[in-house]
Parts: sequence; structure tokens; C-alpha cells
Amino acid sequence: MGRIAYVDGRYLPHQQAAVRVEDRGFQFADGVYEVIAVRRGRPVDEDDHLDRLDRSLRELRMPWPMSRRALRLVMRETIRRNHLGAFGALYLQVTRGAAPRSHAFPATAKQTVVMTARPLSLPTAESLGCGIGVVTVADIRWKRCDVKSVSLLATVLGKQVAVEAGCYEAWMVDEQGLITEGTASNAWIVTAGGELVTRRADTAILNGITRMATIGIARAAGLRFVERPFSVAEAKGAAEAFITSTTSMIRPVIRIDGVAVGSGRPGGTTVRLVDWYLDHVEAEGRTV
Amino acid sequence: MGRIAYVDGRYLPHQQAAVRVEDRGFQFADGVYEVIAVRRGRPVDEDDHLDRLDRSLRELRMPWPMSRRALRLVMRETIRRNHLGAFGALYLQVTRGAAPRSHAFPATAKQTVVMTARPLSLPTAESLGCGIGVVTVADIRWKRCDVKSVSLLATVLGKQVAVEAGCYEAWMVDEQGLITEGTASNAWIVTAGGELVTRRADTAILNGITRMATIGIARAAGLRFVERPFSVAEAKGAAEAFITSTTSMIRPVIRIDGVAVGSGRPGGTTVRLVDWYLDHVEAEGRTV
Repeated sequence: MGRIAYVDGRYLPHQQAAVRVEDRGFQFADGVYEVIAVRRGRPVDEDDHLDRLDRSLRELRMPWPMSRRALRLVMRETIRRNHLGAFGALYLQVTRGAAPRSHAFPATAKQTVVMTARPLSLPTAESLGCGIGVVTVADIRWKRCDVKSVSLLATVLGKQVAVEAGCYEAWMVDEQGLITEGTASNAWIVTAGGELVTRRADTAILNGITRMATIGIARAAGLRFVERPFSVAEAKGAAEAFITSTTSMIRPVIRIDGVAVGSGRPGGTTVRLVDWYLDHVEAEGRTV
Repeated sequence: MGRIAYVDGRYLPHQQAAVRVEDRGFQFADGVYEVIAVRRGRPVDEDDHLDRLDRSLRELRMPWPMSRRALRLVMRETIRRNHLGAFGALYLQVTRGAAPRSHAFPATAKQTVVMTARPLSLPTAESLGCGIGVVTVADIRWKRCDVKSVSLLATVLGKQVAVEAGCYEAWMVDEQGLITEGTASNAWIVTAGGELVTRRADTAILNGITRMATIGIARAAGLRFVERPFSVAEAKGAAEAFITSTTSMIRPVIRIDGVAVGSGRPGGTTVRLVDWYLDHVEAEGRTV
């Protein structure tokens, strides 16, 4: 059974799903997106994703292309038609639409809505628990990283550095030597004192949905937690480190630029967070 | 007669010209482009544009999608099929192609090549000579503005500020209060001493083809010229100011944030540059 994509009101075989060459998403990166995990056909943290989409749209002064209710229905239909099974990911993108090429907002253009979905292996505590390596790269992105836009070229280049270094992710470093976030994940450390640390969600990072869920889990578990930036040196010397993202969930970072973090093995706090986060995903998969 | 677009080896009616929803140009802004003026069917400063395209591709580690010779042939055929007449603009975009969504470069993906063209009114000394207003906005772009990528969301937002202020262009200002460039043009001033000033082409600006042509013209005319950044205050107090770009060519700036520049009318040096630049375009339109 082939994949099906939703494009502007139609469900099409994935290979035929296309957008106009003058779509502003293609010519200007003038669009926003969300990636949503799907457990047993149910979008995980759906309201949080739609709230963030709402914020991204507002920051770029785009209206909703359809009602929130209608978008939820299209999400469900896209999930259904793609037979995601136990687990998968839904991708949705909204652009300012196709219009004769000109930088300023078009006077009249119908926004473009694209949705795709694909089945994925269901992550387990074992698969998530094996540690990953990260490399650090300069953060060369624009100054509105809080908007989940498709203006992703800087992160593409950063991720490629990671891949070529045999690493899972690249952590981006600002001009003060402080880590902002990963190219497709948020960055965390656990201090020797057992405190969880992640950067405050200002305009320098995207406020990850898994980041927010992890904060909630940590608080509920009574873990100490603080939002503040940390340097590359502090991260290398931390007791533990990990990343959070929708599709990577939570993964222990055991090497930064080749330097072992803590014992060089996944940390105890991180491993517990992985378990709790998987519980959270299971609970979301049971939501009525 | 309808417009024709070239997409990956095919010439299609413009309305049918499309790219896959998983094209990396649409999902990651992972592509580069050029806009080339066309005078009497001939691309203006063609070699300079193709040299810059070559540089953009190399910086993003993309190969040429076809030989330079083949690309020139497609350009000519796209121009021919679109009946540009006296004047027009050719748009060409190259992306890393369509591939299952993942930040890092795809192992195998055929690059996407899109070309469109449209006829435009031939600018005249009169139409170019009437002054324009600019507003200043914070430069929030990424740190590789020397690459002509489609990662243009920041300039879209800047241009929109200009349009809503009733202005033609927005000049972007870095953290030191220095003007980098316009959202789709380079920024210039003429000092009280008659010296032409424009920012050095480092990673903070795009080295415009019209910028380079104007430098050549100024030198040939024996005008004094220096590459250095200038502040908003210096620009407001300058004798003259102007912008350069492929489609805007050279236009006098007579107001910056509502403040009159010089006499508040197009400056004499700028007006002469407009004439000389139009001569250059005419000469390019006669190239064999």
C-alpha cells in the first residue's frame, strides 16, 4: 500500500503530491511546519503541537488555512490513509501559498497545506537508551528560531556535519560559547548535583514539545530543574547529557566532540526520563 | 500566450509546473537561485550570474545539476518560449532534490531545476530616476547571506515592513547599527565629498551582480569608491543614497525612515550612474 499525501484538499499518492513552483514555501521558505508522533493512530501531544502551530502562524502573520477542528480531521484522515499501525510520524506544513514571485506578502494567495505521514519503528527503552554522540558547530541561524519555519538550511548544514563525524546530532553554539540547541532537538544536561538544565525558550531556540513534556515529567517526579544556558565546557563536564525531540524522544548523549560525558555511558537520570516519557507516549496513545 | 516553466527536463504551462512535496527546497530551504535580467532575449551579465550560482552551489556542497553549457541552453529556451520581448527576468532555482524528509543530505536524490521567465516593462532613466523611500529594520538573517539561498523568510518579513510603511525597500541594520543591505538589493551612499560607499561583500551581504557592475562603471568613470560599512545616521546625513539590484537596477533613495537624504531629490551622481547602467544593459542586449 502506497503512502498518501494531503495537498490543498486532496489526498494523493505520495509520488504525485506536488506544490506549484511559485509556492512561497519553495521560493522564500515562507512557511511553517510541525512533526507529530502518532501512537496507535493518535497524535501525541496534539494540542501542544497545534498551539505551537498557532503561534508560528501568528508570528509570521499568516491566518489559519482552515479551522483547527478541520485541521484535526485532516490529520486523522491522513493518519488513517497511511496505515501507521503502532507508531509513526505526521508532517504538516502551511505556506503563504503560490503567487507571482515578490518578497512582500501577496495580496491574494490561497495558503498551501501539505500533510504526509509515515510509519516508524516504535522506540523502546532499549533502542532509546543506547547513547549517542554529538558534535558542536557554530549556530549560524537567524534570530527567530522560536518560529518553527521551513527556513532550515543552517540546520541542514549542521546535521550534515554531525553525520559526517559519525554522530547523531550537532549542538549549535552561540557567539558566547553557549549551546543553543540541536539541529532537530533540544539540548539538556544533568549536573553533578543532579539538577536538570536546559536553555530557556527565548528567540534563540525552538520550544520543543518533547522539551515541554520532559519538563512536566521532571517536575512531577520531583527532579530539580532550571532553565539557563550552558557552555560546551560545562556540557562536556556534566554528569549526564541528553536530547529531546518528537521523533528522537529522549536519547542519552554520551560523547560531545569525542569527549565522554560522565561515565561515558547513559546516565541514570536520563534512563529514568526515557521510561517516563515512553509511559507518557503510551498514555497519549490511549487518549479517547 | 501562457507562461512556460522548465522543471526537471520538461517545459510545462506555468500553472502545471510543480515540485514534489518532499522537495528539499520546499521542506528545508535547501536550494539556491538566481534572478537574471533579459534584454532583447539576452541574459544580462550572464557569466557573472553563473559564476555566483557556481559559488552558491559549492558553498552548500551541491554539484551542478547539469553542465554550465546545458544550463545556458535551457535558459535560452525558457526565454524563447516565454516571448520576453524587449525586457524581462529569468528566475532559476536549483535544490538538493526530493527525498524522504531528513535534515542531512540525502544519499541519493536527483537535484531539482526550475526555471521561469516573465516579461517586464523596460526601465527607463525616467522610471528609475524617481526617488524611493526606504525604512530600516533589524537584520535578523542567518550568517551566510553571501550564499544566494532560498532561505529568505527574514527578508520577506523585512520587505513587508517596507511595503506597509509605503516604502520601496527595507535596509537591514546589524547589531553595530551598520546597514548591511536591502532585502532584495544592495545599499549605497554618496558622501558630501562625492565618494561612493557600499559595504564590503563579506558573509553579511549578497554580492549583487548589479553591485559589481556598478563598481565597474564607477571605476571606469573615475568616481572615487570605497567598500566599508556605514551607519543609519551616516546614510541619513549622506549627500545621496541609492540601491542596486538586478530588477530594480539603480534607484535613488530620497528618504530613509522618513528623513530626506541630501536635498530630498535624486542625487546627481546617482542619476548619472542610472544612465551609465542603462547603457551597460543595452550593450549586454547586443552581445552576440
